[in-house]
Amino acid sequence: MEISFSLERLAKEIGGTVIGDGALKITGVAPLDSAKDGDLTFVTNPRYAKLAAATHAAALLCEKEIPGVPKPFLLIPNPYAALARVIELFYPRPVPAAGIQAGAWVPPTPQSFPGMRRVRSHGCVRRQGRRENRSLSGCLLRGKFRRRRGLSFLSNVTVRENCVVGNRVVLQPGAVIGSDGFGFAKAGEKYVKIPQVGNVVIEDDVELGANVCVDRAVLGTTRIGRGAKLDNLIQVGHNVVIGEHTVMAALTGISGSTQIGNHVVMGGQVGIAGHLKIGDHVTLATRTGLWKISRKKGSTSGRPRLSSPPK
Amino acid sequence: MEISFSLERLAKEIGGTVIGDGALKITGVAPLDSAKDGDLTFVTNPRYAKLAAATHAAALLCEKEIPGVPKPFLLIPNPYAALARVIELFYPRPVPAAGIQAGAWVPPTPQSFPGMRRVRSHGCVRRQGRRENRSLSGCLLRGKFRRRRGLSFLSNVTVRENCVVGNRVVLQPGAVIGSDGFGFAKAGEKYVKIPQVGNVVIEDDVELGANVCVDRAVLGTTRIGRGAKLDNLIQVGHNVVIGEHTVMAALTGISGSTQIGNHVVMGGQVGIAGHLKIGDHVTLATRTGLWKISRKKGSTSGRPRLSSPPK
Amino acid sequence: MEISFSLERLAKEIGGTVIGDGALKITGVAPLDSAKDGDLTFVTNPRYAKLAAATHAAALLCEKEIPGVPKPFLLIPNPYAALARVIELFYPRPVPAAGIQAGAWVPPTPQSFPGMRRVRSHGCVRRQGRRENRSLSGCLLRGKFRRRRGLSFLSNVTVRENCVVGNRVVLQPGAVIGSDGFGFAKAGEKYVKIPQVGNVVIEDDVELGANVCVDRAVLGTTRIGRGAKLDNLIQVGHNVVIGEHTVMAALTGISGSTQIGNHVVMGGQVGIAGHLKIGDHVTLATRTGLWKISRKKGSTSGRPRLSSPPK
Repeated sequence: MEISFSLERLAKEIGGTVIGDGALKITGVAPLDSAKDGDLTFVTNPRYAKLAAATHAAALLCEKEIPGVPKPFLLIPNPYAALARVIELFYPRPVPAAGIQAGAWVPPTPQSFPGMRRVRSHGCVRRQGRRENRSLSGCLLRGKFRRRRGLSFLSNVTVRENCVVGNRVVLQPGAVIGSDGFGFAKAGEKYVKIPQVGNVVIEDDVELGANVCVDRAVLGTTRIGRGAKLDNLIQVGHNVVIGEHTVMAALTGISGSTQIGNHVVMGGQVGIAGHLKIGDHVTLATRTGLWKISRKKGSTSGRPRLSSPPK
Repeated sequence: MEISFSLERLAKEIGGTVIGDGALKITGVAPLDSAKDGDLTFVTNPRYAKLAAATHAAALLCEKEIPGVPKPFLLIPNPYAALARVIELFYPRPVPAAGIQAGAWVPPTPQSFPGMRRVRSHGCVRRQGRRENRSLSGCLLRGKFRRRRGLSFLSNVTVRENCVVGNRVVLQPGAVIGSDGFGFAKAGEKYVKIPQVGNVVIEDDVELGANVCVDRAVLGTTRIGRGAKLDNLIQVGHNVVIGEHTVMAALTGISGSTQIGNHVVMGGQVGIAGHLKIGDHVTLATRTGLWKISRKKGSTSGRPRLSSPPK
Repeated sequence: MEISFSLERLAKEIGGTVIGDGALKITGVAPLDSAKDGDLTFVTNPRYAKLAAATHAAALLCEKEIPGVPKPFLLIPNPYAALARVIELFYPRPVPAAGIQAGAWVPPTPQSFPGMRRVRSHGCVRRQGRRENRSLSGCLLRGKFRRRRGLSFLSNVTVRENCVVGNRVVLQPGAVIGSDGFGFAKAGEKYVKIPQVGNVVIEDDVELGANVCVDRAVLGTTRIGRGAKLDNLIQVGHNVVIGEHTVMAALTGISGSTQIGNHVVMGGQVGIAGHLKIGDHVTLATRTGLWKISRKKGSTSGRPRLSSPPK
């Protein structure tokens, strides 16, 4: 099956403007270096503009025209966001695609059976036979899914008891939601386990990467705020609260009871100690190590102590 | 079901002392900030004493009275350890709770079938139908479980062949025991795999966090000592020996053949090179990077080279 | 069953030279410190030569004779590589052994069923009943395995759709191949998911450790080059290219679109930013943090900025 659109049609789809031949037939989308004739390529970061002259693409999706590139342009203020729609057009399939691929096992218990229906409604179960559905994915889902839509659980995902998962949540393979928090009290030479009887709440539109671990609260709730996106292999300790639309890169660890604000951006391999409070719109560079924050009354925007080289 | 105890009764249960009205009816347990009337709250760390004045809790569990807090106290030398018992009283369920939640699949082979019985004796299998038990959890258990009690295997746990798991061990979801060690010999331009034919021994009362990896020994044994507690996403290399009652936080990596003593405390994201020896009761701060130890005869308490900011 | 070889016979097997009694009966192989009488021990690293005098082993496998050790030697230029063969002789089982232990579930879909046959040809499926095979391992395999040989998939492995896995590839438990790359475009206050429609190609003779995550490309391919060996808990971002015979230790993270050359050696907990290019035969010390490379035309051997102590 070949899929093609006129440049003009693509402009309509994303709400952009064509500079040049709008009738040009676009047959694919590809990065600057690998784009072939017929492809639409994209410049989502100005620092790659200089590579645009050498591309073999038929046309370019970018914010503004690039001098010295004698090709049609599809201009739009946010080309990266527009790229999402363009890719959907050339690779038509439900989003999140993952949901289609994975079986999701829901044990026949009252609280989670509705979840089964929700998953079905998303189609990822319907496409697989019951038996495959049971045995394929290795998912263990024991949370509450009542009235949820667009859930995507990939293979080998675990959602433990009493956890709540919102709408349009995507869990990549191996993600673990609701594992016991790391709570042990020193009693003489030994450690006594503090029962972890709280839960995890994953709000709407969250995506958690592969093998991410989100511990359940000792009491109360570990919360991942609406729209937050976590990369792979991230550790979220018990009673942590992550704000809305906060993003963090891989291999980051957040210790227990720390609160992270909304719209925070964190690089990879960041480490944050416990019981800290990070305000909204804070940016933490890759490898930041945060042990202490000089609190000003009400504010939390103190200078973090960095273990990463100063930027 | 409402659960309540008199403060006096709670004191008896944990062996503490009541200051104030022992007949006070306690209906729950909660942290300082979220406690409501009727709750028992707790101050397990002196630095939170200043928050105690503002709590809505009915009474406080702590080490000693906090001046300016006109409420009943339940005093005990180790309130954090006592909290474990208090939580059990208000959230009655077998401990480790995890065992109840997870199916554990044991293949029908002589060496592991006894393990099946042990798991049954703990109840986590009996509560689930055979079919659920098979297909739900995605656990692969091939180790030796003879005469074990109180095992808890959560979903998607892997315990590979010839590994030995002790009594009252808890494996959080996604934990991997007995994966091949990272042993490859350079032969010309290529690498030759060194067969990893040793095993892993997890001694009694160990808890391993979600997605922890413990590699099997190339020859001999990788050992996790009795009572050790490992947080999530920790890497334990082949032939490593971790001492008794040693605890380490998330995202820590320990390279092959390193020996860690008893009662060691390690923060998160610590990295330890291979073939090192760390003595008993050593503390490694978060982010410590340990490449070399200045050995004094017999001792291993040399100054580690830190990549984390000095404390 | 007791296995024994004469020293002479072992020499023949590995192509080495005997110094001393070639008729000596060797009954096992063990490290210097734990070797007993009858064992062959090994010195693969000169710095352990000083420990050789104290070993109870019957003979030593090493590069050259060690003065003051009055025992037979089995000399060979690369004793570590030879050790692989010696271990196989004393622990006879198919290599990679893992393949024998793990079930591998392949869904009944055209593209992957051939993979099932390949896995069968390796024997790891034939040894397990169909039902065990389905429900035991929790593997989800949806990639392309046509004409593959010697695949080893351990339990709870995930290989997602359209991914390609080469010959003699070993995936340790919990490895995730083809999870969605971390691509989200900021659109106002929210993030829009960029569909990740590319794939992952794992070339021949690659081994990936437990709970490793390799993200699929947004467009195109994330590639792990022939013979590369990755330790546990490593994150490989979307569109990353890892060269041939490159090795990296645990807890390392490689951000999207970074290209790593051939024969690169990386320590543990390394972090590499996105869109970087690292040449061939580069060594990155443990904990190296690579944000920027001073590019000389064509070359990429600029000084990395280190967060780890200079070596």
